[in-house]
Amino acid sequence: MNSIRKLLVVILASISMTGFAVAKQQPNIVVIFADDLGYGDLGCFGHPTIATPELDRMAQEGMKLTQFYSAAPVCTPSRAALMTGRLPMRNGMCSNKRRVLFPDSALGIPEAELTIAEQLKSAGYATACIGKWHLGHLPPYLPTSNGFDSYFGIPYSNDMDRVADTPKGREAFWNPKVEYWNVPLMRNEEIIERPANQTTITRRYTEEAVSFIREHKEQPFFLYMPHSLPHVPLFRGKKFAGKSRRGLYGDVIEEIDWSVGQVLETLRKHNLDDNTLVIFTSDNGPWLIFNDHGGSAGLLRDGKGSTWEGGMREPTVAWWPGTIPAGSVSAEISSTMDIYATAHDIAGIDLPNDRELDSINLMPILTGGKGDRETYFYYRGYRLMAIRHGSWKMHFMTQNAYGQPQPVTHEVPLLFNLDVDPSESQNLAEKHPEIIEKLTAIAKEHMDSAEPAPSQLETRIMAN
Amino acid sequence: MNSIRKLLVVILASISMTGFAVAKQQPNIVVIFADDLGYGDLGCFGHPTIATPELDRMAQEGMKLTQFYSAAPVCTPSRAALMTGRLPMRNGMCSNKRRVLFPDSALGIPEAELTIAEQLKSAGYATACIGKWHLGHLPPYLPTSNGFDSYFGIPYSNDMDRVADTPKGREAFWNPKVEYWNVPLMRNEEIIERPANQTTITRRYTEEAVSFIREHKEQPFFLYMPHSLPHVPLFRGKKFAGKSRRGLYGDVIEEIDWSVGQVLETLRKHNLDDNTLVIFTSDNGPWLIFNDHGGSAGLLRDGKGSTWEGGMREPTVAWWPGTIPAGSVSAEISSTMDIYATAHDIAGIDLPNDRELDSINLMPILTGGKGDRETYFYYRGYRLMAIRHGSWKMHFMTQNAYGQPQPVTHEVPLLFNLDVDPSESQNLAEKHPEIIEKLTAIAKEHMDSAEPAPSQLETRIMAN
Repeated sequence: MNSIRKLLVVILASISMTGFAVAKQQPNIVVIFADDLGYGDLGCFGHPTIATPELDRMAQEGMKLTQFYSAAPVCTPSRAALMTGRLPMRNGMCSNKRRVLFPDSALGIPEAELTIAEQLKSAGYATACIGKWHLGHLPPYLPTSNGFDSYFGIPYSNDMDRVADTPKGREAFWNPKVEYWNVPLMRNEEIIERPANQTTITRRYTEEAVSFIREHKEQPFFLYMPHSLPHVPLFRGKKFAGKSRRGLYGDVIEEIDWSVGQVLETLRKHNLDDNTLVIFTSDNGPWLIFNDHGGSAGLLRDGKGSTWEGGMREPTVAWWPGTIPAGSVSAEISSTMDIYATAHDIAGIDLPNDRELDSINLMPILTGGKGDRETYFYYRGYRLMAIRHGSWKMHFMTQNAYGQPQPVTHEVPLLFNLDVDPSESQNLAEKHPEIIEKLTAIAKEHMDSAEPAPSQLETRIMAN
Repeated sequence: MNSIRKLLVVILASISMTGFAVAKQQPNIVVIFADDLGYGDLGCFGHPTIATPELDRMAQEGMKLTQFYSAAPVCTPSRAALMTGRLPMRNGMCSNKRRVLFPDSALGIPEAELTIAEQLKSAGYATACIGKWHLGHLPPYLPTSNGFDSYFGIPYSNDMDRVADTPKGREAFWNPKVEYWNVPLMRNEEIIERPANQTTITRRYTEEAVSFIREHKEQPFFLYMPHSLPHVPLFRGKKFAGKSRRGLYGDVIEEIDWSVGQVLETLRKHNLDDNTLVIFTSDNGPWLIFNDHGGSAGLLRDGKGSTWEGGMREPTVAWWPGTIPAGSVSAEISSTMDIYATAHDIAGIDLPNDRELDSINLMPILTGGKGDRETYFYYRGYRLMAIRHGSWKMHFMTQNAYGQPQPVTHEVPLLFNLDVDPSESQNLAEKHPEIIEKLTAIAKEHMDSAEPAPSQLETRIMAN
């Protein structure tokens, strides 16, 4: 079945590439990825004063996923997992020392990894990355070396490359100026602007995305659009200045919301809406130390950097009119890593069978059914901090995002029923030793079989 | 203008009452009131595992109000304020000693009050109260003595009248049995069942409401439907047992959600949907001491009993197809007290001019515009604890719902920008002395002019 489907796909793809019109080509895939957006920061996820009419409409026409996880509570490993469908520890895109890549990092996503873009490209898809990459800024690690036909965006976080004479500490963030950060803007392998003008960056990402869709409407495409915001420092275009009741952070989200609306409207305009899966989500939870420049995890505990729910559960909306039931909500456990297997299913290609994957096809969930993911692993670097199985989450170790420089190991693990207690406020460990035992066994089996790869995040360009 | 409108209303009402069909009668008003529901407990307000498809649809067809307040953080005063459009301190329906009415209370809502039901009844409306009253259980204080043609429900909270030999303390709540509480179910002035069978109560309220709408479809009507749940002890019908991922509390909310769906469907079926305003909200925040039997305030701080936002801001949805813009969200400041003036406007009658009102017409907000409420007062009993003006909230005193037996007076008030910081986590008092000064002056003016009425809540039947 799969091989027949694959053959058909290859035939269709070749017809398409020779310029013949085909009745129904492989569905397009668009992933819109916010940076440090909190679980509670969208109107449809309960924020009272951030107006997100476009994302609300996307949810009304599509599906809200309320138990959707990133694979890590910080940028680089989270993105690596999305790209590869694998836990960061399997490809070394994590570390217990340097948690993300920096401008002095020498490495990036390993060549041996088969990215979602490489896989879709080989299935005939046009592929573009528009936004923040953060999987290596040196040539072998850039998007165009990893399956993307084109790239437009910044190579790492928008708060990196701080200029020496900016105000010290967090002062520079409260009244951010573009010149404080010497972040480069790249097109493919070239730096085209430095510092990147971040006040216009969301608008420019959007224009690039709209052009890409328009130019590839006759061919299946994969658009990966990782916004560089609302990661601090916060910037927004003139049109959005002072627009939100929520202040600067709200302005930034409302501009991203506008951007989502532009993408969906472009798909509608070109009659691609019934043949395109769009997923909106975020890389990790809100960066709470930045006060009102950071977001809100809503009813979830803690934020970016921690393995409490607020660090890793993301506000997620999926949209595919005609395929995803309109106005639906799914509380099935799912993950950014699952986009990988889902894309393979949609493109009609087989998953690689020469490596461990942590990716489960989302299509059963997206079409209104049950999901196949029972278990979820919460890693902080290489440390397995917690495990979820069904509704139960057990923490071996916890480390609050701030105020706890070292992880705390729990002699008796903490146990929460997340379906009943999403805020992780009622520890049920004493009541349910049998659950502790069961989850410990599942975790042990995982740890015994999982083979950690050497870290790609610790080597610096000027290592001597 | 107003008097012409009123005349027209009287003419139309009399035609209607004589049995002539009229083209467009006064719009109907339905208020559905949950008990102790948290701000974060509905899907459309961000709860991940409580499924509320009917309320989500109501919001998609109507408006979410994200800064809508009850007038008190506990039952009795909150309900009195809704009924009268007045702060509880103005009619004595509050106390610093006994915060609500009990089965031994001798008094109730004063006869001099003009309830919303009395006002609408005099304008030709059929009126019904179906649910928990809690404004006095003795004859002069019952719904039928206060403007309602009919009453079906329980007269006070569902955890009152505890039978002597039930398990002690909170034990009875964890596995509640109907027999533990000797709460009466009443029809009009008669007790028809004791103890009320609470497992079927939401269903029976719903059936009563559907019948009332059906029987009064030719006449303008006011339906006040204060559910007795999700106040503890929690009960739900067989159909909802084990239905929710959120456990028993979720089952209860999902039955109320079903009930809302039944009411809206009945309105649609009788073509009343474009001529009926339906407002869904709650009396106060979630009762946090009851662990998973209590709700969640979402991103708001604290819960029932406190004047932090979690105690008084309610998840509110308004619905009136053709009048309220579909899928809209309003963050304008508004209140249960505002239903009073709104109902007067809708019914085309004048507000009483012989008393102080705290009610502002919601129609400008409901039709998509700005609201007229700039200021909100947070009372705990007779104590003015906090004031909101625009986006600023200032606490003179705070008292957490639990763990603080006495209020804490703040030498320098606490100051929060609620639009920016709905979680009340960043005290800006030091940064903005000018706001402190301004809000203090507004509060002083209010306190100087407001005349507290004697408490109706402290007198017991067996006072000697």
